[in-house]
Amino acid sequence: MAVAPATPAYRDAMTGEERKSYSLAELTDRFGGTVLGDAAIRVRQVAPIETAGPSEITFLTNRKFQKLLDSSKAGAVIVGKDATSGAAISCIVCDNPYAYYARVAALLNPEPAAEAGIHPKAFVHSAARVASSASVAACAVVEAGAQIGEHAVVGANCFVGRHAMIGEGTRLHPNVTVYHDCIVGKRVIMHSGAVIGADGFGMAMDAGRYVKIPQIGRVLVGDDVEIGASTTIDRGALADTVIEEGVKLDNQIQIGHNCRIGAHTAIAGCAGIAGSVTIGSHCRIGGSAMISGHLSIADRVDISGGTLIAKSITKPGTYTSVFPFSPHEDWLKNASLLRHLHEMMDRIRSLEQQIKKMEGQ
Amino acid sequence: MAVAPATPAYRDAMTGEERKSYSLAELTDRFGGTVLGDAAIRVRQVAPIETAGPSEITFLTNRKFQKLLDSSKAGAVIVGKDATSGAAISCIVCDNPYAYYARVAALLNPEPAAEAGIHPKAFVHSAARVASSASVAACAVVEAGAQIGEHAVVGANCFVGRHAMIGEGTRLHPNVTVYHDCIVGKRVIMHSGAVIGADGFGMAMDAGRYVKIPQIGRVLVGDDVEIGASTTIDRGALADTVIEEGVKLDNQIQIGHNCRIGAHTAIAGCAGIAGSVTIGSHCRIGGSAMISGHLSIADRVDISGGTLIAKSITKPGTYTSVFPFSPHEDWLKNASLLRHLHEMMDRIRSLEQQIKKMEGQ
Amino acid sequence: MAVAPATPAYRDAMTGEERKSYSLAELTDRFGGTVLGDAAIRVRQVAPIETAGPSEITFLTNRKFQKLLDSSKAGAVIVGKDATSGAAISCIVCDNPYAYYARVAALLNPEPAAEAGIHPKAFVHSAARVASSASVAACAVVEAGAQIGEHAVVGANCFVGRHAMIGEGTRLHPNVTVYHDCIVGKRVIMHSGAVIGADGFGMAMDAGRYVKIPQIGRVLVGDDVEIGASTTIDRGALADTVIEEGVKLDNQIQIGHNCRIGAHTAIAGCAGIAGSVTIGSHCRIGGSAMISGHLSIADRVDISGGTLIAKSITKPGTYTSVFPFSPHEDWLKNASLLRHLHEMMDRIRSLEQQIKKMEGQ
Repeated sequence: MAVAPATPAYRDAMTGEERKSYSLAELTDRFGGTVLGDAAIRVRQVAPIETAGPSEITFLTNRKFQKLLDSSKAGAVIVGKDATSGAAISCIVCDNPYAYYARVAALLNPEPAAEAGIHPKAFVHSAARVASSASVAACAVVEAGAQIGEHAVVGANCFVGRHAMIGEGTRLHPNVTVYHDCIVGKRVIMHSGAVIGADGFGMAMDAGRYVKIPQIGRVLVGDDVEIGASTTIDRGALADTVIEEGVKLDNQIQIGHNCRIGAHTAIAGCAGIAGSVTIGSHCRIGGSAMISGHLSIADRVDISGGTLIAKSITKPGTYTSVFPFSPHEDWLKNASLLRHLHEMMDRIRSLEQQIKKMEGQ
Repeated sequence: MAVAPATPAYRDAMTGEERKSYSLAELTDRFGGTVLGDAAIRVRQVAPIETAGPSEITFLTNRKFQKLLDSSKAGAVIVGKDATSGAAISCIVCDNPYAYYARVAALLNPEPAAEAGIHPKAFVHSAARVASSASVAACAVVEAGAQIGEHAVVGANCFVGRHAMIGEGTRLHPNVTVYHDCIVGKRVIMHSGAVIGADGFGMAMDAGRYVKIPQIGRVLVGDDVEIGASTTIDRGALADTVIEEGVKLDNQIQIGHNCRIGAHTAIAGCAGIAGSVTIGSHCRIGGSAMISGHLSIADRVDISGGTLIAKSITKPGTYTSVFPFSPHEDWLKNASLLRHLHEMMDRIRSLEQQIKKMEGQ
Repeated sequence: MAVAPATPAYRDAMTGEERKSYSLAELTDRFGGTVLGDAAIRVRQVAPIETAGPSEITFLTNRKFQKLLDSSKAGAVIVGKDATSGAAISCIVCDNPYAYYARVAALLNPEPAAEAGIHPKAFVHSAARVASSASVAACAVVEAGAQIGEHAVVGANCFVGRHAMIGEGTRLHPNVTVYHDCIVGKRVIMHSGAVIGADGFGMAMDAGRYVKIPQIGRVLVGDDVEIGASTTIDRGALADTVIEEGVKLDNQIQIGHNCRIGAHTAIAGCAGIAGSVTIGSHCRIGGSAMISGHLSIADRVDISGGTLIAKSITKPGTYTSVFPFSPHEDWLKNASLLRHLHEMMDRIRSLEQQIKKMEGQ
C-alpha cells in the first residue's frame, strides 16, 4: 500500500471521475474580476504556485511572491489589483484573490452529494421528521421529535437527540453528537467528534459532596457556523449557550455553558472558553488561548495564541500573555528570578534611596 | 426553522408534556427549609431571578443581588438564613440555597426515562450480561463478558469493551467508549465523546525506534463521578488508574495512566494531568491547568486556571503560574526583558556593590 | 459490583483463560540477553517490583532501586549490564531492560485476536475492499472505494471514508473516524475518538464574512504510528498533512493542516500544533505544548510541557517557556511586576548613570 503522490491527478485517478474544467471567462462570469491574457484557458484544479501545471489555477496574495510567477507552469493565476502585470501567465484580476481562490477551489472540488434518504442501518425514531432531500447515513441515530432539514446530511454514527433541530443544508460529519433540544442553523458544518449540548459544569457543594445543577438550557448554533473536530459546546444551565452566525471554530475547542460567541468570530484550535463568557463579533482568538468565566470581550478583539484572559476586555486590539521560550538552561536562570521580582523591585527602590541620600550629602 | 425563545414554556410546548407543579410546602417537606410567606404557592420551573414568572422559583445566593428581588416577578425564591426578610415574594429559607436550588431544579426537570431493554439495532454479545432494567440504545455495542447494571443506560453508538462493568444507574451518553476490563461505579454520568481506558502513553526507546509498553492496568471509576464530553482517562500500565467517588471532570480533560484522583475533587475543562499523578480529595483544578508526571498533590489544593504544576504540592492552598495578559505592544516591551532577568539581577548586584564601596570611602 | 483488586490474577479470573507461561531460557531465546540464575524459572505475567510474585517477572532500569530487589518476591527480574549481581533472584541481563520488559509484557499479554470478517451490523459499501483476514466490527461504516488491509481491525462504530486506505495489521479502536482519501500505513494503532482528515481551519475574510477554503489535501500516516484518544489531525489544504513512520501521539493532540511530523517523534497529551508546522525526527514535545503556525523545528528537539514555541528552532536541545507556579499570594506580588519590567529596567539604567556620574566627580 505505497503512498501515491498527493497530486490532484492522483485524486482524480482514485475517484475515476473526469473532473470538470472551466475557462477563465466562465470563472469571471461567475465570480467577477477581469481576465488579463487568454480568457479561453481552461483549468480543472487549484494548486500551489510552485507545483501548478497548465490545467491548474493558482493565486498570489502577496507581492513578495511575484517572482514565483515567472517560473510557474500554472495555467492561470488569481491576482489582486496591485499585482504588477507583465507575467507571461494569464491572470484573473480581482479585489480579494484569496477569497476568489476559495470560491474557485469550491467550484472545482464539489463535495460528492450524499444520497437522500435514511440508510437502512440508521435508526430514525418514528416521531422524528426527516426532510425528503436530507440524508441520514448508516448507524446514525435520530431521536423522537428531532427535525432534519432539507438537504441536511447526518453522517454515519451521528446522534441527534430528541427535539433537536438540524437546519437546511447543514452537514454533520460522522460521529457528531447533538444533544436533545439543541437547534442548529442552516449550512452549518460540524466535524467528527464534535459534541453539542452536553451538560455544563455546574454543581453546588453541600456537606462535602457535589450536588449536580441540572442543565436545562440549550445550545443555539446560527447559520453558516463551522465547528471543528472534537470541539465541545455545553448547553446552558438556565438560559442558552449561543453561537452566532458565521462563527468559525477550529478543533478541540471547549465552550462552557451560557457563553455567547459573537457573529463572524474565529477561534483557533484547543482554545478553552469557560462558562458565561460573552465574546463580541469579528474577534480572533488564537490557539490554546483560555478565557476565564463570566468575562466579556468586546467586538474585534484579537487574542494571541496561548494567552490567558482573566479580565474583561472593553476595547478592540491585540492582547497577549505569553512567556517567551528559550533554551532550557537560560530559562532556568531567568525563571527562578520570576519568584523574586518583588524583591528585585525592593532592591532597586533601596538603591534609589541610597543614591538620593548620597547626592544630598 | 426560526429559533424560538429559550423559555421553559417553549420547552414544554416542544415536548407537549404538562410539567408537574409543586407547592412550597411540598418542597420543604421533601428537601427541608422553612417557608416565609404563602406555602401554597405552586411552582413548575426554575428560572433566573430577572426573568422568572409567577409559576417559577428562583434563588438568591448573594446578598448583593437582594435588590433584584424587589422587582422580580418570580413565584418564589430560595434564600439563605442571612437574607433580609421583607420581600413581598414568598421564600424558602435554607442553609445552602444553591444546593437547594439544584435539588428543586432536578425535581422539576426529571430526565425522560430511557426505555429498558436492548434496541434491535444495538449489538450485545451473547456472553455479555445486561440487567433487565438497563437500556442499551441503537447502534451501541457491548462486548463479551461485559456487565451492564440495573437501570444503567448505554447511549446510542456507545462501546463497552469485553469484561467492562457499568454500575447501577450509570448513564453513558451517546458516543462514549469504555475499553475492556474497565470498571465504572454507580450513578456515574459520562458525556459524549468520553474515552475510558485507552492505552497510556508508554514506550521504551530502543535503537532509534519506540517499543510499545503494553498497558495492562484498568480504569476504575468510583460512584457518583461525572465525566465531561471528550474527556479521556487512560488505563494503567501495570496498576490501575483510579477516579475516586464523587469526582467531577469537565470536558476535554486528559488524565494519564496510573493517576489517582481523590474523592470529590473537581477539574475544569481542558486540564491535562500527566501520568502517575496522585491528586488528593476535595481539590479544585482550574481550566487548562497542567500537572506534570509523577507528582503528588495534597488534599484541598486549589490550582488556578492555566497554571502548570511542575513540583508536588504538600499543603492546602491556592497555587498559580499565570503570565498576566496586556495589550500586545506592552507585552512586547516587557516580555523581551524576561529573557534578561538574570542580567537585570546582576546589574542590581553590581550597583549595590558600587554603592557599598562608595559609602565605604 | 465491588471493585476487585487489580492483580493479574484478577484479570485471569475475569477472562477465564489459562495464561501461558515462559521460562527465562525461552525468553532469552526469543529476545536475547543472558540468564543469571535459574533459567528454568517460569513466569506468566509482568508486575511492579514491589508487588511481583513468584510467577511474575519485573524489571530494574535504575540502580538506585537495586535495594528493592532484596525484598522483592518476583520470580525473575530484567536488569541492565551495570546491575550489581548478588541478588538472590534470577535475572535476565540485557542492554535495554525497559525495552526488553516491553517485549516480554507484550508476549505475556497478547491482544485477543479480532474475528476476521464483516460483522452483520457493520455497513461496508459494495465498492469497498476488505481483506479476508481483516475484521470490521459491529456498527462500523466503511465507504465506497475504501480499502482495509490484511489483519487490519476496524473497531465498533468506526468510520472509514470513501477511498481511504487502512494498512495491513492496523487497528482502529472503537469510535475512530478516518475521512475520505486519507492513507494509513501498516501496524498503526488509533485510539477511540481519534479523527483523521477533518478539514483544516482555512478561510478567507471577504466583506465581513468568512469564505471557506476547500481542504483538498489528505492525511498520510506512516507505518508503526500510534495515535491517542481524541487526537485530531487535519487534512491538508492543497498538499497533504504527513505523519511519518514511528511517530507516537498521545491523547487530545491537535495537528493542523499541512503539518509534517518527522519519524519517531513523540508528542505528549493536549499539545497543539498549528497549521503548516514542520517538526523534525526524534523530537519530544511535552504535554500541553503549543507550536505556532508555519514554524520549523529541527531534528532531536525537546520541548518542555506547557511551552509555547513562537519561532522556528534550528538546533537540537531543550526549550522551555513555563511560568513557575507559586502560592497565589506570592504570585500576585510578582505577577503584577511583570507588567513593569520595562520600567524596572529603566530605573536600573538610570541608577547606573547616576553612579557613573557620582564616581566621575
